[in-house]
Amino acid sequence: MLVSGGVDSATVLAIARRRGFDCHALSFDYGQRHRVELAAAAAVARALGACEHRIARIDLRALGGSALTDDIDVPKDRSPGEIAGDIPVTYVPARNTIFLSVALGFAEVLGSADLFIGINAIDYSGYPDCRPEYVTAFETMANLATRSGVEGTRLRIHTPLIELTKAQIITRGRELGVDFGLTFSCYDPLPETGRPCGRCDSCLIRARGFAEAGVVDPAGRK
Amino acid sequence: MLVSGGVDSATVLAIARRRGFDCHALSFDYGQRHRVELAAAAAVARALGACEHRIARIDLRALGGSALTDDIDVPKDRSPGEIAGDIPVTYVPARNTIFLSVALGFAEVLGSADLFIGINAIDYSGYPDCRPEYVTAFETMANLATRSGVEGTRLRIHTPLIELTKAQIITRGRELGVDFGLTFSCYDPLPETGRPCGRCDSCLIRARGFAEAGVVDPAGRK
Repeated sequence: MLVSGGVDSATVLAIARRRGFDCHALSFDYGQRHRVELAAAAAVARALGACEHRIARIDLRALGGSALTDDIDVPKDRSPGEIAGDIPVTYVPARNTIFLSVALGFAEVLGSADLFIGINAIDYSGYPDCRPEYVTAFETMANLATRSGVEGTRLRIHTPLIELTKAQIITRGRELGVDFGLTFSCYDPLPETGRPCGRCDSCLIRARGFAEAGVVDPAGRK
Repeated sequence: MLVSGGVDSATVLAIARRRGFDCHALSFDYGQRHRVELAAAAAVARALGACEHRIARIDLRALGGSALTDDIDVPKDRSPGEIAGDIPVTYVPARNTIFLSVALGFAEVLGSADLFIGINAIDYSGYPDCRPEYVTAFETMANLATRSGVEGTRLRIHTPLIELTKAQIITRGRELGVDFGLTFSCYDPLPETGRPCGRCDSCLIRARGFAEAGVVDPAGRK
């Protein structure tokens, strides 16, 4: 299971636990400017009963091309229409593919046939690798790529949030007891305090989600 | 283009150069015990006119599960039938998928629509991620995963060796002027000298390939 430390993956973890899965959480130190999310990922994994949490290092900065890993400014104060409208500079090339590929290797080592990822296609910032047809294609590829594919086990990519809005994800997470106070979403934390900027796409989508769910964001009270 | 420093990727690089591509070589430091191959990759990239060579670091050792990255013995002196017969412990879970995924991100940053990999399905040590149907599935996924997919450019995974035997690859590489003396194939180099063990599957496949091609392995003369 991919756990970033944000709202979505925390909810996915709670859903998988509720379904009875033993959850092996995997996060990535990929040179992101918001590396503080890794501490949130560890806290979320612990609080929701993951049986382990591993952090894999991979230097996506060597490839460049994203505001999350380069010296490119993270866009601020964009409207919902702007956020939904294009592929933004915060898009990290092939990120979900790279993360799912490493998770696929991890699943194969564990002998697991179930990968979970908190992709959602509604409030998704316009990233191509958050679409359902992408997930289906990855699953098909994964079943041809691996030992389990050869040996007849059907590997599944679970995306329980894919058709939910951010507000619905937050509502579902709260029903399952997720403490969203542990989560972290910001792409561009304030350098002095490490606190969320409140103005990047991710902060704005989060704020709108909590507002639409009619819930106060517990992380905002800190 | 994925360049490991072995016979196959050197030949692929020569083929792509002959076809007129500007080649951006990508290698991985993934915790492999035969990290010496990275020096061979750099030499091969330089000799065959790649316009750059990058090494991406990714800690596959954190996942475990392979003789190439763990303290598991690399099998020695296996017969051709044994080599062809199963998925060996040298298989690194999801390795080609992870490497191709990072290459996909690199291609996207470069604005390239062409990925090259030296997969071959004939003398391939029984790895599931060397089969043609796997490559096709990866290509389909890649076109849904990326900006280029969204914007209508068709991304291609080129596998010019996929139907060649090792002997045919060597013959083709020689026609194109590849200096196989620069290449390195061994999974388990001798700790004292860093030289090939001569007994792992990769060394045996290489030796058989040169023998069948009727050529003396120039790396063997060193």
